[in-house]
Amino acid sequence: MKRLNQPISGNDLARFSGPNTFMRLPAANALEGLDVAVLGIPMDIGTSWRSGTRFGPKQIRAESAMIRPYNMATGAAPFDSLQVADIGDLAINTFSLSDSISIISDSYGAILTHDLIPMAMGGDHSITLPILRAIADKHGPVALVHVDAHADVNDEMFGERETHGTVFRRAYEEGLIEADKTYQIGLRGSGYAATDFAEARGWGFQQFPAEALWNHPLAELGAEIRRDIGDRPTYVTYDIDSLDPAYAPGTGTPEIGGLTTPQALQLIRALKGLRIVGCDLVEVSPPYDPSGNTALTGANLLYELLCVLPGVQQR
Amino acid sequence: MKRLNQPISGNDLARFSGPNTFMRLPAANALEGLDVAVLGIPMDIGTSWRSGTRFGPKQIRAESAMIRPYNMATGAAPFDSLQVADIGDLAINTFSLSDSISIISDSYGAILTHDLIPMAMGGDHSITLPILRAIADKHGPVALVHVDAHADVNDEMFGERETHGTVFRRAYEEGLIEADKTYQIGLRGSGYAATDFAEARGWGFQQFPAEALWNHPLAELGAEIRRDIGDRPTYVTYDIDSLDPAYAPGTGTPEIGGLTTPQALQLIRALKGLRIVGCDLVEVSPPYDPSGNTALTGANLLYELLCVLPGVQQR
Amino acid sequence: MKRLNQPISGNDLARFSGPNTFMRLPAANALEGLDVAVLGIPMDIGTSWRSGTRFGPKQIRAESAMIRPYNMATGAAPFDSLQVADIGDLAINTFSLSDSISIISDSYGAILTHDLIPMAMGGDHSITLPILRAIADKHGPVALVHVDAHADVNDEMFGERETHGTVFRRAYEEGLIEADKTYQIGLRGSGYAATDFAEARGWGFQQFPAEALWNHPLAELGAEIRRDIGDRPTYVTYDIDSLDPAYAPGTGTPEIGGLTTPQALQLIRALKGLRIVGCDLVEVSPPYDPSGNTALTGANLLYELLCVLPGVQQR
Amino acid sequence: MKRLNQPISGNDLARFSGPNTFMRLPAANALEGLDVAVLGIPMDIGTSWRSGTRFGPKQIRAESAMIRPYNMATGAAPFDSLQVADIGDLAINTFSLSDSISIISDSYGAILTHDLIPMAMGGDHSITLPILRAIADKHGPVALVHVDAHADVNDEMFGERETHGTVFRRAYEEGLIEADKTYQIGLRGSGYAATDFAEARGWGFQQFPAEALWNHPLAELGAEIRRDIGDRPTYVTYDIDSLDPAYAPGTGTPEIGGLTTPQALQLIRALKGLRIVGCDLVEVSPPYDPSGNTALTGANLLYELLCVLPGVQQR
Amino acid sequence: MKRLNQPISGNDLARFSGPNTFMRLPAANALEGLDVAVLGIPMDIGTSWRSGTRFGPKQIRAESAMIRPYNMATGAAPFDSLQVADIGDLAINTFSLSDSISIISDSYGAILTHDLIPMAMGGDHSITLPILRAIADKHGPVALVHVDAHADVNDEMFGERETHGTVFRRAYEEGLIEADKTYQIGLRGSGYAATDFAEARGWGFQQFPAEALWNHPLAELGAEIRRDIGDRPTYVTYDIDSLDPAYAPGTGTPEIGGLTTPQALQLIRALKGLRIVGCDLVEVSPPYDPSGNTALTGANLLYELLCVLPGVQQR
Amino acid sequence: MKRLNQPISGNDLARFSGPNTFMRLPAANALEGLDVAVLGIPMDIGTSWRSGTRFGPKQIRAESAMIRPYNMATGAAPFDSLQVADIGDLAINTFSLSDSISIISDSYGAILTHDLIPMAMGGDHSITLPILRAIADKHGPVALVHVDAHADVNDEMFGERETHGTVFRRAYEEGLIEADKTYQIGLRGSGYAATDFAEARGWGFQQFPAEALWNHPLAELGAEIRRDIGDRPTYVTYDIDSLDPAYAPGTGTPEIGGLTTPQALQLIRALKGLRIVGCDLVEVSPPYDPSGNTALTGANLLYELLCVLPGVQQR
Repeated sequence: MKRLNQPISGNDLARFSGPNTFMRLPAANALEGLDVAVLGIPMDIGTSWRSGTRFGPKQIRAESAMIRPYNMATGAAPFDSLQVADIGDLAINTFSLSDSISIISDSYGAILTHDLIPMAMGGDHSITLPILRAIADKHGPVALVHVDAHADVNDEMFGERETHGTVFRRAYEEGLIEADKTYQIGLRGSGYAATDFAEARGWGFQQFPAEALWNHPLAELGAEIRRDIGDRPTYVTYDIDSLDPAYAPGTGTPEIGGLTTPQALQLIRALKGLRIVGCDLVEVSPPYDPSGNTALTGANLLYELLCVLPGVQQR
Repeated sequence: MKRLNQPISGNDLARFSGPNTFMRLPAANALEGLDVAVLGIPMDIGTSWRSGTRFGPKQIRAESAMIRPYNMATGAAPFDSLQVADIGDLAINTFSLSDSISIISDSYGAILTHDLIPMAMGGDHSITLPILRAIADKHGPVALVHVDAHADVNDEMFGERETHGTVFRRAYEEGLIEADKTYQIGLRGSGYAATDFAEARGWGFQQFPAEALWNHPLAELGAEIRRDIGDRPTYVTYDIDSLDPAYAPGTGTPEIGGLTTPQALQLIRALKGLRIVGCDLVEVSPPYDPSGNTALTGANLLYELLCVLPGVQQR
Repeated sequence: MKRLNQPISGNDLARFSGPNTFMRLPAANALEGLDVAVLGIPMDIGTSWRSGTRFGPKQIRAESAMIRPYNMATGAAPFDSLQVADIGDLAINTFSLSDSISIISDSYGAILTHDLIPMAMGGDHSITLPILRAIADKHGPVALVHVDAHADVNDEMFGERETHGTVFRRAYEEGLIEADKTYQIGLRGSGYAATDFAEARGWGFQQFPAEALWNHPLAELGAEIRRDIGDRPTYVTYDIDSLDPAYAPGTGTPEIGGLTTPQALQLIRALKGLRIVGCDLVEVSPPYDPSGNTALTGANLLYELLCVLPGVQQR
Repeated sequence: MKRLNQPISGNDLARFSGPNTFMRLPAANALEGLDVAVLGIPMDIGTSWRSGTRFGPKQIRAESAMIRPYNMATGAAPFDSLQVADIGDLAINTFSLSDSISIISDSYGAILTHDLIPMAMGGDHSITLPILRAIADKHGPVALVHVDAHADVNDEMFGERETHGTVFRRAYEEGLIEADKTYQIGLRGSGYAATDFAEARGWGFQQFPAEALWNHPLAELGAEIRRDIGDRPTYVTYDIDSLDPAYAPGTGTPEIGGLTTPQALQLIRALKGLRIVGCDLVEVSPPYDPSGNTALTGANLLYELLCVLPGVQQR
Repeated sequence: MKRLNQPISGNDLARFSGPNTFMRLPAANALEGLDVAVLGIPMDIGTSWRSGTRFGPKQIRAESAMIRPYNMATGAAPFDSLQVADIGDLAINTFSLSDSISIISDSYGAILTHDLIPMAMGGDHSITLPILRAIADKHGPVALVHVDAHADVNDEMFGERETHGTVFRRAYEEGLIEADKTYQIGLRGSGYAATDFAEARGWGFQQFPAEALWNHPLAELGAEIRRDIGDRPTYVTYDIDSLDPAYAPGTGTPEIGGLTTPQALQLIRALKGLRIVGCDLVEVSPPYDPSGNTALTGANLLYELLCVLPGVQQR
Repeated sequence: MKRLNQPISGNDLARFSGPNTFMRLPAANALEGLDVAVLGIPMDIGTSWRSGTRFGPKQIRAESAMIRPYNMATGAAPFDSLQVADIGDLAINTFSLSDSISIISDSYGAILTHDLIPMAMGGDHSITLPILRAIADKHGPVALVHVDAHADVNDEMFGERETHGTVFRRAYEEGLIEADKTYQIGLRGSGYAATDFAEARGWGFQQFPAEALWNHPLAELGAEIRRDIGDRPTYVTYDIDSLDPAYAPGTGTPEIGGLTTPQALQLIRALKGLRIVGCDLVEVSPPYDPSGNTALTGANLLYELLCVLPGVQQR
């Protein structure tokens, strides 16, 4: 029986030491045998306000060294049953957003020839469109759990149709997602018209504005989404700016009045049972995160997503 | 029909670009025709602990570039019906608090010869006393919604009677406010004696300590205040330190155990219907706000106040 | 009748001025006549991740200058009835953790020859083991209120049995605490196995994971603990990382999903009536706290602990 | 006789106040009558390492409020003889480097239909290529004073031919500059081969590596360059990373062992007499400049460039 | 023979520990027997740009804990022969600059009834005017060594005649200083006219602009000044902004192109032999000094001044 | 012929991407075939003032991603002739300085069974003592080039004989170094007596205080040292605090008046020709280095050391 990859233990090597891989897991070049591939997509050229997310994967990895393998709250022990490795970063073209988007979909296409679940560390949210293209190419249209302050359903920005603010309109138009199994959680802030959100509801998107969630535990909402999706293949995209800036200051387009990390944990933990086929955590911007705590939060949310992937056992 | 001022759209000019006016509205030198005048009062010489609020207006304006014109949560579209402009900063005397206080009341006197609503970006809280003098000179004693960690009802500080800690005792003594229509929300922290707060209650002030509000949505409280005030002219003064330091770290005299931004939004939104004749947002201190998120919060709260001014339509 | 020590008033000397003692209380070299001795234990060589807590006492003192003597929320006036002074820092050996642990227990032994309550400002959590040794030496096994993200019940770390992660296993083994009157509040995060927490429950420890406390006011829990302990001598150890990183970013091993400061205040205030014989506040790490607000929070929690010590009157 | 624009005096309005224009000069929409147009090109999508220069123009303007109109060292009084205004920012497309490069050259084409000198605040160094295209279109090939840590003569980066690292190879190939009147000052650091620099010397570029300049006053070098250029139209491009990181920490690709600000001042002041037809200051990255001093330095260097423009009188 | 005060040794108590006095010297309330009184004047209400110097004394003291008693470069051992103590802070009125200026001159008057040398830690530079009033009242007009980026000889600012920019015009007018024994070292930057500096030269002030000092060791200049002054009573006022922002970023009005710390050390060390009757170090602004290194520099310069006071022996 | 390891090129993978090894070299577990092993020793428990160097190796590696393989100034191409890899971090015991010192000497003993040159990234300076023990064990007493603000020749600190301040007294006593071929460069600051430095001179150490080096290029000094050492085996230990805090703010015990980075480069480059058998770069403390530029400087100095190792060719 094969020995599964384990994070380096904090008792074997001091936590501030060791490789800068996610959770200090082994780095892998080959994808064979992996159940989960953690990867970085270091990019910020798709963002409209503060940049800096190009350093997101690096800092998320650095902060992830704090995380131990067993989930005390849920009992999940992901490394008991899944072979997980950090496969490094995609080689995007930092001078061209459109080229980078092609590179991402091509790279995901190659990755998905293997039977594994890719977990991406962004990067700005524009990475999710090419990911979804590759995901849909393999799995067909997927259910989408989209946690974010913004709906990202603009038609274009400065004439560009592929940016961090247009992702889910494109995904809808291209049939990459099942519109009525698309859940947008944490929306808020200012816009241009009620249609900014309403149009997507017309497509079938189910929206849960932050205002409606304040002070509400989210386990119930997560459970409803899980039941509603059933056994469809599902993609989870987690924009760190869904959290309130008190909890996640280091991001490019913060919006006040957001979710709390307890809510984030409740929501993700309730997704256990979904057939997740991929996920990402985006928009951590280290230059605006001097304490590193936004990256730490991102790392933990990725870990929690790992804990609810299909096949993870609890003990 | 006149064309109303609009913020520069993020699709016309990148958000990190353009004039450093509030929400990238037009700058105006003339007050004719304005319904709302946004202005800065850059001052920190009235503060007793950390300084730095002299840079408050500049950073609030910078962060306000993120805000779009339409309020997704309430449907308010303030620029559909109000002519709003940024009229710049008052030319205070940075070497003399007492002189600056005179300059502020004189400047407000001149501004209020026009039929408009002034929205001030502080500066420390000592700006509110001369503002109230000018406001009362025009409107008579006003109802006061005062959101703050501190009651600011000291008699004097170092022998001075006009500082950021004595504002509302002076306002009471001078008959600038209706004492029994004065609401102090978010009070907390340490003091010298129970009378620090209780004396003002004796004058008629209605106090809502933070402790009593923890975990409570504030829409209800806001609605009660609105009903209690009725159609009296009302001034709203918002000290950013009413928020917990988790939400607003960049301020001069932070106190733990404060309000949350969801509570702040609930409270302000519930004030819709009041006859607000002026408002301010004070005590944002940029040197203690490296992420800019406190200024961002201040900018959003000003925007929310704008959304509940008389005459604002929803769509 | 003796004149009790009072903090320097902010009206006598500007808050940014004066001695860097806790709350600007008098410094004392002699312990005679003191009811409470506030002291620093500046140390970070017992920590496993980010260091920096060696500067904790200095920054907690600096930020404590904001705190006034009277507790507006509870009416406690600790300086009316208790003689309190800042007795400075213990002279630890910054190059040897084991030697420092001996120094601390010896120093506490000397301090406890006086009939006073020591309040320690850490320093990393490894200081609590030698403190408990001296405390138990005087008072016998004590009840323990332990607020923390981590159970700190490892057997060893890198072969060392006395670090910030092994404190309460040692305390249990050595009979320093009453196991079934030990309350661990705020536990969370990741670990290695369910036994990480469960073993201590087997000893009798009562554990209250953060997840179970989210959105719950903690006054009730505090009251239950108080009743459960009764009149036993009690030690309170407060790790600032029990708070969510949103509230206390400046700490060495932050864990997301923690308590809020309102919860911290509720909990401490409910402990009024306990026979507290000592307490500490640990793990404030100034290099990770550029705003100073984590130290400010630590200072306030110490003040709140002071307000619930035996003998404190309310007015 | 026309009244020339003057910066707002620090005695009329506190320096932390007023419009966020360069040196608090008037903002201008129309170009008629201007001798010098200061403008921002807020962009960072052409950078290969740390981003953030999109906020460069904003912070350079903010820090420029400290600068008074008269140059105490040289006696230059630029506002006595030149009509200078801040014409705002170019509306680049933040999602496309190639499109932004077109926008810049088009915008400069329009600006240069007027007889004025454009002074650009970057932005990353990729802005200089389209600027030179427009400059050469009007003036023919220009002499070039290029102060920089890097030669920026790569052929391509990730297959892109127009980035912040390829500018001067393109400018050479396209005949925008006079190769033997091109001076690269401050070069240093690591590369791939000696040809990284040597090839450009083969084209005629005159290179002055930082190592050769350490401890040398640069007035002499500046004077030689001035004599060598004579009355040719000249463009000056100033990359803030030419300075040592001690002097300019807030930049995207810092290299140790650079120039000092005294050297920068000596060099620029010695250029007095050149027929400068345009200039820029690039690569100030505010997220890496928390003190603001890199932007302050950039603002001062622009001011010094202003002081040596043709027509500036000394008094 | 009396035992002189000594700083706490770093081998007796860890440097991050102990009282927050200058160099961890004893705090003293009584002035009897002191040769040197170190004191803080925590104030920033006299500054025209960035505030924050109110925290200067606190941070200078904190960083001074690094300094050991013996000067390795000069052999000076100030604590062998001088009785030095930290006498705390003056109780300025933080709400009134004019009142604070009176408090400072009164306090200095009282201090100077003793035969000691006061060393002040500012605070902004406006503190030096009232100090000079008291100094001249005791000693008559003094020679003045004034190291600064700015001449501080404005007539008024916003109509105020006593601010950080008018100090030395007032001192000249009031006959507090010997004009032809006044040395202004490090002047630079921008102004309004050549007379900004030249007028003071007309009074007799000897000015040494920074430009003339670049790359020059300053031992010679210091020696010339010492010879020129002879045995006149001399006051030394050291504005930290005389240093280049690379060396002293944390100050209120930084000017590029300044002095280096080696130059500062050379200058001060060459003053040995002067009859110094008082000195100050001003304009350290901690909010702009996150590394603490500007305060560290200020602390060291004060230490170097201490080392050249009359009576200090070398060994 | 074997293919030598090369850093990942910035044109193959964006610099903010890829493994966190030194210069993005391959990580190696096996030492066979290596000429140079770069390794981290992440430790700060041997420091007496600010901690944080435990994160030094991580941040030095992160910043080293900027460095390209060819030295433009010297023509050195280290990867043409040397097989270099990053072998990760030593597994020190973060709770025990004495145990860590043993681990380091043991680990080095094992490493030095191979014929390679170890280049260590600290960590505080206490790592150099166990390194020298292993080095001397293999090579006999070595010549020592020691660049530092401090002589580190204390006898003990808090009773401990092995800390970051006692390294070179121990090395001398134990015969690890050739005393008269030991060069201490950059010494300065304050101490306790002239003997602090002079005693070591009595042993034969050659000391070059910073004061004597100000404004002097150091190529000459380097060349003299090289000639003086001849072909003895030589160890180079580089404490980043030898640099002035302007150049290297992020360190634990900064001293003003230090060396410049140009001097550091001149010195190292002049050492070409020495038989260097090992080297280290210590005392980079990331929590005090928010810009990352101190780590960047450290990375570059290590690169420059690599460029002067025996066998490196120039092209």
